[in-house]
Amino acid sequence: MSSDVVIFVCTSCKREGDAPDAPRAGAALGEAVAVAGPHRVQFVKCLSNCSRGPSAALVRPGGWSYVFGKLEVEGSPEALHEGAALLGASEDGTMPWNSRPDILKRQMIARIPPFDFTPAESAP
Amino acid sequence: MSSDVVIFVCTSCKREGDAPDAPRAGAALGEAVAVAGPHRVQFVKCLSNCSRGPSAALVRPGGWSYVFGKLEVEGSPEALHEGAALLGASEDGTMPWNSRPDILKRQMIARIPPFDFTPAESAP
Repeated sequence: MSSDVVIFVCTSCKREGDAPDAPRAGAALGEAVAVAGPHRVQFVKCLSNCSRGPSAALVRPGGWSYVFGKLEVEGSPEALHEGAALLGASEDGTMPWNSRPDILKRQMIARIPPFDFTPAESAP
Repeated sequence: MSSDVVIFVCTSCKREGDAPDAPRAGAALGEAVAVAGPHRVQFVKCLSNCSRGPSAALVRPGGWSYVFGKLEVEGSPEALHEGAALLGASEDGTMPWNSRPDILKRQMIARIPPFDFTPAESAP
């Protein structure tokens, strides 16, 4: 199951208020996520969530994709792996809301359906 | 080419400042996008970008996915189809920046890589 979800972490992200020449908060987040759980972690240079970083995304083939923002080295790495496990195990390809860590409720930026998603009820 | 990208429009989105019982701005956006160009348009109930709506996303199989916010019935529908064409035609699966409509630069919320994305340079 753990191979079915990848965690992308933007290593360019700054934290709001950080000095321009401070080490990138996203890079520290990436290193912490890489050792915090079993899912594949892939560093990327930009998730275009720059004003709400540090940022990470969870992607499952054929499932919904999720972006989160304002993540911290403390707590967020474990939460991302927990969310990845929930997403990987879900039957409908979405991350269940009630059981997910609070960080992944409060700091959600957006979710995107898979290409072939067609809800039963598709009218506006 | 036009069948390779789908445009998801959230029909539940409100516009900031709209009265609670006003017709949903996202529903009007969805109807406008559906007739503004050649790409498949799929209505969805939530892209979790609620505080920055109305929202839409572009998805291409094997490519990057994009979310946009604060979209308007005037201008945004055509821009979304233009962006979908650019994304569909791109060789690397990303939407080129310079040639895309201004709306899709200013009102970008996030972009998410495809599951198997591995940049040549993957260190933070």
